[in-house]
Amino acid sequence: MAIKRHYDREFVRTFFTSPTAVEGGDDSAKMIRSAAQLQGMKAPDVWVPDNEDATAPSMRDEGVENLIEVVSEYGADFPGEIHPRIVWHREDSSTRYQGFQHMLEIADPENGAIEHIDGFVIPEVGDIDDWKKADEFFTIIEDEHGLEKGSLSMSVIVESGEAELALGDLREEIGKPSNNLERLFMLVDGEVDYTKDMRAMTPTGSLPPWSELRHNTSRGASAAALIAVDGPYDDIRDIEGYHERMEDNRAKGMIGIWSLTPGQVVEANKAPLPPKTGSWLLETGDDEVELREEDGRQIYDGDEISLEETGDGYVLRVGTDERELDEEELHEELLAMTSYVPSMNDIVDSMEEFEAAKEAGQGAIAMTQSTTLAIGDVEVTIEKDRMWDEATYQAAQTPVTLFQDVYEHRSDQHEELEEMYGSDVVDRATNVGN
Amino acid sequence: MAIKRHYDREFVRTFFTSPTAVEGGDDSAKMIRSAAQLQGMKAPDVWVPDNEDATAPSMRDEGVENLIEVVSEYGADFPGEIHPRIVWHREDSSTRYQGFQHMLEIADPENGAIEHIDGFVIPEVGDIDDWKKADEFFTIIEDEHGLEKGSLSMSVIVESGEAELALGDLREEIGKPSNNLERLFMLVDGEVDYTKDMRAMTPTGSLPPWSELRHNTSRGASAAALIAVDGPYDDIRDIEGYHERMEDNRAKGMIGIWSLTPGQVVEANKAPLPPKTGSWLLETGDDEVELREEDGRQIYDGDEISLEETGDGYVLRVGTDERELDEEELHEELLAMTSYVPSMNDIVDSMEEFEAAKEAGQGAIAMTQSTTLAIGDVEVTIEKDRMWDEATYQAAQTPVTLFQDVYEHRSDQHEELEEMYGSDVVDRATNVGN
Amino acid sequence: MAIKRHYDREFVRTFFTSPTAVEGGDDSAKMIRSAAQLQGMKAPDVWVPDNEDATAPSMRDEGVENLIEVVSEYGADFPGEIHPRIVWHREDSSTRYQGFQHMLEIADPENGAIEHIDGFVIPEVGDIDDWKKADEFFTIIEDEHGLEKGSLSMSVIVESGEAELALGDLREEIGKPSNNLERLFMLVDGEVDYTKDMRAMTPTGSLPPWSELRHNTSRGASAAALIAVDGPYDDIRDIEGYHERMEDNRAKGMIGIWSLTPGQVVEANKAPLPPKTGSWLLETGDDEVELREEDGRQIYDGDEISLEETGDGYVLRVGTDERELDEEELHEELLAMTSYVPSMNDIVDSMEEFEAAKEAGQGAIAMTQSTTLAIGDVEVTIEKDRMWDEATYQAAQTPVTLFQDVYEHRSDQHEELEEMYGSDVVDRATNVGN
Repeated sequence: MAIKRHYDREFVRTFFTSPTAVEGGDDSAKMIRSAAQLQGMKAPDVWVPDNEDATAPSMRDEGVENLIEVVSEYGADFPGEIHPRIVWHREDSSTRYQGFQHMLEIADPENGAIEHIDGFVIPEVGDIDDWKKADEFFTIIEDEHGLEKGSLSMSVIVESGEAELALGDLREEIGKPSNNLERLFMLVDGEVDYTKDMRAMTPTGSLPPWSELRHNTSRGASAAALIAVDGPYDDIRDIEGYHERMEDNRAKGMIGIWSLTPGQVVEANKAPLPPKTGSWLLETGDDEVELREEDGRQIYDGDEISLEETGDGYVLRVGTDERELDEEELHEELLAMTSYVPSMNDIVDSMEEFEAAKEAGQGAIAMTQSTTLAIGDVEVTIEKDRMWDEATYQAAQTPVTLFQDVYEHRSDQHEELEEMYGSDVVDRATNVGN
Repeated sequence: MAIKRHYDREFVRTFFTSPTAVEGGDDSAKMIRSAAQLQGMKAPDVWVPDNEDATAPSMRDEGVENLIEVVSEYGADFPGEIHPRIVWHREDSSTRYQGFQHMLEIADPENGAIEHIDGFVIPEVGDIDDWKKADEFFTIIEDEHGLEKGSLSMSVIVESGEAELALGDLREEIGKPSNNLERLFMLVDGEVDYTKDMRAMTPTGSLPPWSELRHNTSRGASAAALIAVDGPYDDIRDIEGYHERMEDNRAKGMIGIWSLTPGQVVEANKAPLPPKTGSWLLETGDDEVELREEDGRQIYDGDEISLEETGDGYVLRVGTDERELDEEELHEELLAMTSYVPSMNDIVDSMEEFEAAKEAGQGAIAMTQSTTLAIGDVEVTIEKDRMWDEATYQAAQTPVTLFQDVYEHRSDQHEELEEMYGSDVVDRATNVGN
Repeated sequence: MAIKRHYDREFVRTFFTSPTAVEGGDDSAKMIRSAAQLQGMKAPDVWVPDNEDATAPSMRDEGVENLIEVVSEYGADFPGEIHPRIVWHREDSSTRYQGFQHMLEIADPENGAIEHIDGFVIPEVGDIDDWKKADEFFTIIEDEHGLEKGSLSMSVIVESGEAELALGDLREEIGKPSNNLERLFMLVDGEVDYTKDMRAMTPTGSLPPWSELRHNTSRGASAAALIAVDGPYDDIRDIEGYHERMEDNRAKGMIGIWSLTPGQVVEANKAPLPPKTGSWLLETGDDEVELREEDGRQIYDGDEISLEETGDGYVLRVGTDERELDEEELHEELLAMTSYVPSMNDIVDSMEEFEAAKEAGQGAIAMTQSTTLAIGDVEVTIEKDRMWDEATYQAAQTPVTLFQDVYEHRSDQHEELEEMYGSDVVDRATNVGN
């Protein structure tokens, strides 16, 4: 029997932290208050009122009060899940005890916040035994406050070597009779503190890429039916960099990412959804550019590549590399240099086509994508075939399953999704594959 | 005591799947029949008649029949090993039971196929405990059919996060008294299903690189004296891409690769063998180009780099970066920019030279490679030294050991190997290092 | 409670091996004798008289004698730690026993060397159980020779798949009552033998990058409070390559590197220290160049990028990509393309500023770095902000902690450090953060 997910969401795109307290009297709950009222694409899948790093150490009791007040007031209307981050440290029992007390306070039903709260986020965890200490506090809190056992989910921030190692133990530890680790929900990388813990250095102080950490987090999540979330992207003005990071993460199976601002939330909510319109990419040496569509042709506007017809063939130049090709060679070469980014509509089409073929008893079918490329004055029509079998079908289904998960849980985003795709595509995408 | 290999081959270059059944009556065994008759470089080291993904679910019983018929008929003459893939799934016991029944049928000596079969391939394994379930079925089958205990080898396809984690447990699980996991042979990555299991996405639907998976598979194989094999390379027309993937794999210690077509088999059989002729590489900014030999000089034909003699020195341009250098600086710079790809003959020469030095009591000797570079009108002679000690010797030996393994087990490839290298080099390469 | 470091150094920059014996009578201790007398930046943090690979098998008993003689004579004045490497192999008990005998001899107080020796380096280890065999020998040696229990530190060379796997077990094995693995000190990668063990191959015979191994070593060190050291960089003339390797290592938290020559020691001792002077980097397509300072402006001299003022804005060209930008867009773009490498002085400044802010009750402050860029005839002033919180502060502290560790333990380098930074910066850097 497979490990079962014990929570509602299959995907989390956005993990948005906002401070529960800032310095200075009247303003102290301002940022958490405005975060609590976000809606639609600006609202995250998971909102994390943050009583750890985003709140000054001296303000953390006040942070708990603010959190309770704001979540009580706005929690019912908040469209995503709410998972406050409390304080914790694998190497400091008094911090752990403070975290426990804060959770106990927040979870007190008399305070009116807990009915809107889905779980807590535990930062700075260590070995799996440290995770169990937190889990035990969740269990006590559920007992004390008469909450259903296991109803509070637990997410952790992986920001130490030992926590990374613990990711390999999760699958066999979850479900042991003396813990309730089935409550685990998100595995979130915290690269700033991880960098410190690993004593890593870069010349500019920018974060190292930490590819292996992200792989191990994603794998741990996959093996234990949890959700992997990447850490914060510090340079909040660098939208392109944020998108590249998310694309790299998705190729690792890490769909979620931390957002530091509502602007980042919007980007991160939209990024994993397939595009409205398909597009063709052309490799130009080390890079890849998106071609421009015009009258059904895909036009290359750059000057890295040129193509000329000669009397008896073609001359294709890529950078400084020139080659003479006959028609068939040119065709092969262009086929190898192009790739197609399918739209949501394309994916749904292909899935439906494969489903029909399967029903008719076929195990594999060829999907064809054709277009006319225009490079300089030369036009060439190419056809890309891809064999689809059950495995291809299931791998292609991931973005659709993600879309369906979003559609099911985020009715506040329906309008924007319909604007984005049109209601016909939304309808088909919500139904395909079920 | 080191973990011992329990099987004959030390290296597997090619893992070739062909369907045991396709849709439609008379043709149903056509592809498996033609695969069974491959010889020489077209024949794989391991042939995998595939009754899983390559055979439609409704055709799998017929697939078993086809497999038995074809292996009985052609198996005696097939030059590689034969390892049918049957159905299995870590999350579905009825699939596992079906796989067991198919193996039991195929292994029945009365059916005449098992004497030509070396083992089975188990796809979609999970935790190490799931691997043990399959191992137990192998043991039962050996008992039932009076086969020698442990005579059937077991290979697995790693296509889930939990199977990747199991790669770290193999070394301590193999050899425990209640399993027969010494029968393990190949650890094969299956990136399509792995991508699905990890819920990874790329814009074009192409497979992510999964570097860490391949490292972990190779390391697991190394630690448990098994053989690591990379998954299928979908784009069967992209020969260059297939070669780059194999080169990247070899740098990870993963020598074997899945082949989907006899054309891919030829490429993958030849790729890990050292070249007939040595060659010089020149770094040109981010790339590296192979120089062209003419009259003993190595000639650079590109225009990324230029070199000119001035009155009192040289001007070396790489891309847009120009530098004035004196003779010694130029020499140093060109030394750093060049590298040499040794031929099979070069490797054998160096090994013999080191062996002689060792016999004479020397622990380390310098190996020198010299050539004349021609860039534009300027010619420069360089000498590259490399210190060889025992460790260098042993690392350099890997391609030779591979060659010797191939030569020992694949007499059907002797002729092609002699055409490729000449019989003198083949003779010396089969004898060196023993 | 966190795992405690059981040794004095927090960082090791240089792990310098020199042969304890070379071939031929009178010269046999020459190289070890000259290594023993290194001082200042030429002297490593850890000096490893090498009785394994650098000494011919037939010379190893003589090597032990040389080692004892030289360490007895020069050890008292050697400024770094001394950790001889003896022979060991996970798959050969007679080699292990020989290593034990050599250590027993070297550690005999009557021989006068052990008082200057900090530990031993064990190559070719296997599973954690193999590490425990070595640890047991250390314990016996301490007993036999009346040395304090645990006083001899043990470092290992990771050069097999099983040793890499053992890196994941360290944290839970250290401190078990039946071993003394708290004596562990350095985890050193040995990529030449590792490459052989993994059966990896590259066309030129150069070493694969082994990114995952280095990550796993660094993580294992971080989780068990040990020190990670990268293996040898063979091409001793390629200073730039050595620096790139070290920069890549530092981004993985692996600060130390093997040095094969006193020249490499100097480079490796200086590399992790922050620069004397800050500098600005500009991205030029795929590369990054350091700008040249002149009269307070940062000047770009290359031709990859050009910037021109037009009547109503700017034209910025990067490679072949030209864009028209207004003043604000240009500003944003240049902000994204630049980064700043802080000097030691900058880091100390920022730390002091943050400490003052924290004392005044602030949790986070913005640090600003501004400069004027000159590209062609156009000058643009930019300001880079970075938010500093406790986590940023602690991550930024790593190079300063490293500096302080060096300063505390290497009084022979004080003069060079003061020449490098000036005594004022040295003073402030030794005191900040404590």
